Amino acid sequence: MYTISDYLLDRLKELGIDEVFGVPGDYNLQFLDHITAREDLEWVGNANELNAAYMADGYARTKGISAFVTTFGVGELSAVNGLAGSYAENVPVIEIIGSPTTTIQKNKKLVHHTLGDGDFLRFEKMHEEVTAAIAHLTAGNATSEIDRVLNVAMTEKRPVYINLPIDIAEIEITKPNKPLRQTTENLTDVEATILTKVEQALQQAESPVIIAGHEILSYHIEHELNEFIQKFNLPITTLPLGKGAFNEEDSHYLGTYTGSPTEEPMKSRVDNADLVLLLGAKLTDSATSGFSFGFTDKQMISIGSTEVKFYGKKYETIQLDRFVSALSTLTFSRFTGEITPVKRRSNTEIKDEKLIQKRFWEMVEAFLLPGDTIVGEQGTSFFGLTNVPLKKDMHFIGQPLWGSIGYTFPSTLGSQIANKGSRHLLFIGDGSLQLTVQELGTAIREKLTPIVFVINNNGYTVEREIHGATEQYNDIPMWDYQKLPLVFGGTSQTVATYKVTTEVELNDAMTSARKDTERLQWIEVVMDQEDAPELLKKLAKIFAKQNS
Amino acid sequence: MYTISDYLLDRLKELGIDEVFGVPGDYNLQFLDHITAREDLEWVGNANELNAAYMADGYARTKGISAFVTTFGVGELSAVNGLAGSYAENVPVIEIIGSPTTTIQKNKKLVHHTLGDGDFLRFEKMHEEVTAAIAHLTAGNATSEIDRVLNVAMTEKRPVYINLPIDIAEIEITKPNKPLRQTTENLTDVEATILTKVEQALQQAESPVIIAGHEILSYHIEHELNEFIQKFNLPITTLPLGKGAFNEEDSHYLGTYTGSPTEEPMKSRVDNADLVLLLGAKLTDSATSGFSFGFTDKQMISIGSTEVKFYGKKYETIQLDRFVSALSTLTFSRFTGEITPVKRRSNTEIKDEKLIQKRFWEMVEAFLLPGDTIVGEQGTSFFGLTNVPLKKDMHFIGQPLWGSIGYTFPSTLGSQIANKGSRHLLFIGDGSLQLTVQELGTAIREKLTPIVFVINNNGYTVEREIHGATEQYNDIPMWDYQKLPLVFGGTSQTVATYKVTTEVELNDAMTSARKDTERLQWIEVVMDQEDAPELLKKLAKIFAKQNS
Repeated sequence: MYTISDYLLDRLKELGIDEVFGVPGDYNLQFLDHITAREDLEWVGNANELNAAYMADGYARTKGISAFVTTFGVGELSAVNGLAGSYAENVPVIEIIGSPTTTIQKNKKLVHHTLGDGDFLRFEKMHEEVTAAIAHLTAGNATSEIDRVLNVAMTEKRPVYINLPIDIAEIEITKPNKPLRQTTENLTDVEATILTKVEQALQQAESPVIIAGHEILSYHIEHELNEFIQKFNLPITTLPLGKGAFNEEDSHYLGTYTGSPTEEPMKSRVDNADLVLLLGAKLTDSATSGFSFGFTDKQMISIGSTEVKFYGKKYETIQLDRFVSALSTLTFSRFTGEITPVKRRSNTEIKDEKLIQKRFWEMVEAFLLPGDTIVGEQGTSFFGLTNVPLKKDMHFIGQPLWGSIGYTFPSTLGSQIANKGSRHLLFIGDGSLQLTVQELGTAIREKLTPIVFVINNNGYTVEREIHGATEQYNDIPMWDYQKLPLVFGGTSQTVATYKVTTEVELNDAMTSARKDTERLQWIEVVMDQEDAPELLKKLAKIFAKQNS
Repeated sequence: MYTISDYLLDRLKELGIDEVFGVPGDYNLQFLDHITAREDLEWVGNANELNAAYMADGYARTKGISAFVTTFGVGELSAVNGLAGSYAENVPVIEIIGSPTTTIQKNKKLVHHTLGDGDFLRFEKMHEEVTAAIAHLTAGNATSEIDRVLNVAMTEKRPVYINLPIDIAEIEITKPNKPLRQTTENLTDVEATILTKVEQALQQAESPVIIAGHEILSYHIEHELNEFIQKFNLPITTLPLGKGAFNEEDSHYLGTYTGSPTEEPMKSRVDNADLVLLLGAKLTDSATSGFSFGFTDKQMISIGSTEVKFYGKKYETIQLDRFVSALSTLTFSRFTGEITPVKRRSNTEIKDEKLIQKRFWEMVEAFLLPGDTIVGEQGTSFFGLTNVPLKKDMHFIGQPLWGSIGYTFPSTLGSQIANKGSRHLLFIGDGSLQLTVQELGTAIREKLTPIVFVINNNGYTVEREIHGATEQYNDIPMWDYQKLPLVFGGTSQTVATYKVTTEVELNDAMTSARKDTERLQWIEVVMDQEDAPELLKKLAKIFAKQNS
């Protein structure tokens, strides 16, 4: 029998989903049966629902889309912070909630996982604030609603929510007879008009600069962006919220633009450009060091999926992938000015000295290889990585807008599952790791082999930099990070652990970890609790001021 | 300088709060300064926000009220499932959210921890669904709004939400000049009318029975309830959602009523009563084995904080604590019929045999001491404990309505902090523990000494009983439960660990754990994955049917 569950799963497969994350609950078990029965889908169970949402987010950032399953009430509310992060940073994640039967909902029964008031729509209503679309499936609307919300997820690159009453999961239905996506590559009239305005601006500009943002990654249009840049020889930078959108080894790449702390000559080049063209970029506080960018509305055109602005004036919005693809068709002269690409730090001699943040990130820079996926936890890690120039074919994952600590550990695992061929390098602090550590069990069960750098600096260093340097609330319990993977199911056959305090030790661990591709690499990096990357120190002062 | 922060903290102290839970974030750090500066308040930092919410819930169940602090967006959404549980089960928890400054919010700046759309009210709006009141503090409304929502929390025994923009935290203000609570003990006219109707019903009843529910615990009116029962010699039972509301050693106590699986003679006594008077009780599916109670609306009066019903007809609601206190003033004849109190299992001989669920719970029954606090995780533990008769002066914590797995571990720690003098016994399965395990670090840092029984039965046994007994989705990664406390900061000085597989081993561990009051006791109990308490087996069949 072909059921609504099968229809939904067929559509997920059509979008390229091969693994589904989540946590079982008695309102979703029958639906899970349809997943485990398939040869072409793998169920990846998580330790908790927030971790499932984070893992799905990482998977979607790498594979383009993802899905996870929770149970009604308790499960979906545990996951909602993860979904909000996907919404904020434009990541298309599909959450499927197994809910009580239609009859139970209709009769307002006082069943478990409810607030005991017979209201079954409260959690769905809460999700309206953090999703792009919501479907509440019935026997009559299931196929059209599934197709509608999946199309919204793909078009808007944002999470959607599917409420699947568990009786509906088993209803018989016919297979889809046409493909899910019927998109057109033709520009709308609005898009054509906006494209012409962009063309005119580029024709007149003498010192243009492009700033790419995270939506380039969301729409996976790095290739289309690159075509545009190469064709017109344009200088380009990315924001930290969008790092990885352009090949940082390319000669057109100026570096990562971070507002006032940006290094010269990039800073002046960007700030003094007569045209700053933002593509899929958002000038958030953490991406611009507290709005300290040195250009104004008068220089700026911003083309994004939710906002189009010319010199401060808002226009109708466009479909970003279609629009960026069309940029290569424009007619204007190739830029002929000078472009100073980002400087790379030469790897200085490894010394037998206590490791400090500055040296750590220099050594990381030398460690990266083309094709790696780099993940930076919001905190010292993200800000340390911001000014590390990436190599080509690298994928970078961070969460600087939503900034939910703990996010990157499950996210790394999700991304690693999405692209097993790319070595994943995670940089995460001890304080952040504590939030989501139980997913180590999943990493080991799934035999994942990322290289995890656990920066042990005794607490919330990012917070210490902002406020309360020695306050008790920035301390965390001291764990035995070396032994962690071993209690979560790891053995010396599946995990290699290291603890490093000096440059020499770090170098040895890096060399060993790079070669050892069959085991999870777990490198505890001990650094001082008051040490931090230069960018973070500057930003923290700005954030402290912003809070007063 | 006396600030709005100080005012809020003074009010929390006034309500009896001595510890505040939470996770720091850059929008709440200044507020936390006011907590750590006080001699009379302790900051208890958590590993993540959901755990903080659970811990606050446990603290409130024992101490009457609690507070925890999160940061805007990421923090509050991580915690919201915990708050929803407090709402469902009537636990007054105050969540204080440190948010961006009033200026940033007013100017709709694109700061971190937002969805990047300038809308600062989305998360507050989401919380309307799971809290009894919301305050968004301003310079002008702070004191009145703080007082208003704290009063709602105390009156309705439900969570409230305080949004504290971080600039508002520092505004100077005058100290409160009158106490927070100005409650009256006089019944309203409505309450008096309802009381008279209850009196008439009791006067006419020949075989009345009282069913006490969880709201007796929420309002801490166990003493008032007892006075009523003793005065009129009434037979009483509790629902599983409300276990502990009445002294289970008292001769008026029939046992825990669970619907159709209830043992005789209690089942017939309750089902055939000519008056079933529910006090603060909700007939939910998990409390009544899928609504299988054997009495009807025609026999039933239900007096609860959110619903008053006489024989199926709804009346205006009452204030439960005031109402139950007044029950002892009624005039009707003492009940003279027979009351058969709950049977206690005599502790049979300890055998050197593999431990099974049935024997485990018999041995637990013998292990309990008056004054203990017992916590049962939703799953085999809760259903195993349901039919274990408690001893006097015991406090029982479970979450059968909301049923969020993982809840009880942080909740036990919160309750233990609230009442350090009561030995806490937690019963939790391996699958549940995995969701919130990182709070072990907090337990060890705070030097808490509960006795934790970790039931290792290789996955989600409660789900296996409902559906998918051997399905992969009910498996979990196998951890090394013995070593867990040691990686989270424990040592042999602070933690005692045991692994038991037989009755003799369990008995030895119990004996040792009871004596050792200076260390956290961590007892891994290995049982078969298909073994389950009898009640759970019956209930699971009913739940499976409910889902079809």
